Amino acid sequence: MYTPLILITNDDGYQAAGIQALARAVASLGEVYVVAPDGARSGAAAAITCTTPVSYSPIDKTLPFRKEMAGGFSCTGTPVDCVKLALEQIVPRKPDLLLSGINHGDNASVSVHYSGTMGAVYEGCMKEIPSIGLSLYLQRGQRYEDHPVSDDTLDAIAALCRRVLQQGLPQDVCLNINLPVAHKFRGWQVCRQARGRWSAEWISAGNPRGMESFWLTGQFTDLEPEASDTDFAALRAGYCSIVPVTVDTTAYQAMEAVDALTR
Amino acid sequence: MYTPLILITNDDGYQAAGIQALARAVASLGEVYVVAPDGARSGAAAAITCTTPVSYSPIDKTLPFRKEMAGGFSCTGTPVDCVKLALEQIVPRKPDLLLSGINHGDNASVSVHYSGTMGAVYEGCMKEIPSIGLSLYLQRGQRYEDHPVSDDTLDAIAALCRRVLQQGLPQDVCLNINLPVAHKFRGWQVCRQARGRWSAEWISAGNPRGMESFWLTGQFTDLEPEASDTDFAALRAGYCSIVPVTVDTTAYQAMEAVDALTR
Repeated sequence: MYTPLILITNDDGYQAAGIQALARAVASLGEVYVVAPDGARSGAAAAITCTTPVSYSPIDKTLPFRKEMAGGFSCTGTPVDCVKLALEQIVPRKPDLLLSGINHGDNASVSVHYSGTMGAVYEGCMKEIPSIGLSLYLQRGQRYEDHPVSDDTLDAIAALCRRVLQQGLPQDVCLNINLPVAHKFRGWQVCRQARGRWSAEWISAGNPRGMESFWLTGQFTDLEPEASDTDFAALRAGYCSIVPVTVDTTAYQAMEAVDALTR
Repeated sequence: MYTPLILITNDDGYQAAGIQALARAVASLGEVYVVAPDGARSGAAAAITCTTPVSYSPIDKTLPFRKEMAGGFSCTGTPVDCVKLALEQIVPRKPDLLLSGINHGDNASVSVHYSGTMGAVYEGCMKEIPSIGLSLYLQRGQRYEDHPVSDDTLDAIAALCRRVLQQGLPQDVCLNINLPVAHKFRGWQVCRQARGRWSAEWISAGNPRGMESFWLTGQFTDLEPEASDTDFAALRAGYCSIVPVTVDTTAYQAMEAVDALTR
């Protein structure tokens, strides 16, 4: 019987609790390789490293979650670098599935654009690998360790991965999954990306040397709080949201209006 | 008469020839602010800086292109950081137009996903500012300085910006413009993102200390070389391509198929 190859990465680094939970959850589905950043890459989006070389090294085999895997590597680059390096330098054949996460924090609504978790997923999708990003909707200040994804949610993730391994995903489409903090799995909801906006994004980091500096922070506003078909609506109702995401950025419905601007 | 405010950024840094040409081209359209990275941020995508503070400082007023502008600042962060900082800390009111570029290198097809130029454009779009990214399709090894955007192309860009200032852009839609290297402006072509693939992406950077490292590089393949309605088709024919890009990543046409996977 064919053993599927599953590549796992994230943007929180290989030591994060979320990627360890994910690797364990799908360990029985195939040959699992973890190739993840050597530390936090939150907010890396689909960034690639252009100005320095990138390298990778084996994850210590004594780590508990390392034992269940065919291979484990940490990488000095971004999540997208991890995927690119894994595909050309590390895994023995093309993966049948790419997973990214479980991110410590949500990537719903417009946050998908800043997400290193989803950057890696885009990369897998562009390489024609069924690719899924998973993120946990923690409130600010909440830690993954205090609100781990429940065992039955991890089982549901594994079951979904099994179906994707069997059936694949539509061309140029990957999945952006967000999970609510919950003791029990309530179900999946396939939905669209909510319209949202970040504001009040900077707080002073002081001015010790004559140049004021700022920490990026911010408040998120769901611009469609009444909608029932968005990722945030699903999360509010306690469901796990799945947004099918396309790597074709074209706004087809706007082509005529934009064409008129050029006449 | 109302004077529009135009915010300009890029991912090659404020000293790049491309941003200077762009700032000059639109200087007569309004009050121009440049807030751009202090050096190269190629491949930054929509990355944001989460692990260090970000700061900005005035661009030296003796720089030739600085004189034509209302304000000029360099920033230690990513292109998206530049936009976020500009909006909250620098410009006196909400910009009427955001421009990013002119990038030294194309951002057509799937390269849009890695593009710091377009990352800044997404950010402007999410903040409901009409936003346009501009990139020059240089071949590898070609320098902007040796193949500058022609004066009549810069005039066409300014004319398009004037129309966007008057009419705006559709909600959640921004523009990804790529320019061919050409002595004369042949016209605009509104098109879709070509399907494409990067491969052979790593070359060894040596192994001086027991850990092999790699430079990211790669070969791009247009997967639709026969298509006539893609950005690369337009560029090959000598036209300036305009892809209307949406910040709504939802693959609406795939929702039913994905829903079936959850049953």
